[in-house]
Amino acid sequence: MAIEIERKFLIKDDSWRARVESESHIRQGYLSGDARLTLRVRVRDDQAFLTLKGATKGIARSEFEYGIPPADAEAMLAEFAQGPLIDKRRYLVREGGWLWEVDEFAGENQGLVLAEIELPSAEQSFPRPDWLGAEVSDDPRYFNASLARHPFRRW
Amino acid sequence: MAIEIERKFLIKDDSWRARVESESHIRQGYLSGDARLTLRVRVRDDQAFLTLKGATKGIARSEFEYGIPPADAEAMLAEFAQGPLIDKRRYLVREGGWLWEVDEFAGENQGLVLAEIELPSAEQSFPRPDWLGAEVSDDPRYFNASLARHPFRRW
Repeated sequence: MAIEIERKFLIKDDSWRARVESESHIRQGYLSGDARLTLRVRVRDDQAFLTLKGATKGIARSEFEYGIPPADAEAMLAEFAQGPLIDKRRYLVREGGWLWEVDEFAGENQGLVLAEIELPSAEQSFPRPDWLGAEVSDDPRYFNASLARHPFRRW
Repeated sequence: MAIEIERKFLIKDDSWRARVESESHIRQGYLSGDARLTLRVRVRDDQAFLTLKGATKGIARSEFEYGIPPADAEAMLAEFAQGPLIDKRRYLVREGGWLWEVDEFAGENQGLVLAEIELPSAEQSFPRPDWLGAEVSDDPRYFNASLARHPFRRW
């Protein structure tokens, strides 16, 4: 179990692309989700994960993640996923010693790009890259579970 | 992933106890459950498991099970379990070459004893032990997820 502290931002421009260290392809779906508990299946390139996340309390939430066989992940997504799958490319971007995850969405969420940083504590400060836009950590529309139900292109 | 075909019975008397091969202590809770999908955390002696089960179709249902750290299981049960935990002793009982699981419930379900057999196909026949009572495979009251919400002692 981990307590996850993440902050999430829009982006202002594409200059982050010059700082990409690596990228991966992510497809994920939500098997059940309510205010208390979210159950996610993610396929990242050739690996798969089952993740339980608790309710967000401020910007922290409990998280439990386990590697699972990709064939299990595909079977679960086919049988249980609610709504269309989230499809995105995730870029790791290093700025001022900090690692950002920049997610560029495809499919029903095409046009949306979000930058996230994981922090060791809620009080931790960090440099704001020039390309960073408005913070949306607390806006539930940008939760991936929400984006599966109410995709960006229909906003 | 496995397709699980189980048949479940009440018992008529205690003569199964003479055929017990081994026993274990099980505590389990349901983190979320609807008609489509059940999410269970089980602690069996010093091991723990996270299990997803699909909707029962006749006597078959899909099942995905993963071993997890016991500390994770306890944290998940504390944060997410719906209703009181199921607490039972599970006895493995061999009869005519077949292995039965006999569950003797404690706590809110004290007084209930159920025998289950797992079969390779829905059509598979098997010998009925003398102690076997009425079949309850299709009675939703005896699903463990139901017993967590509506325990036997309150029936």
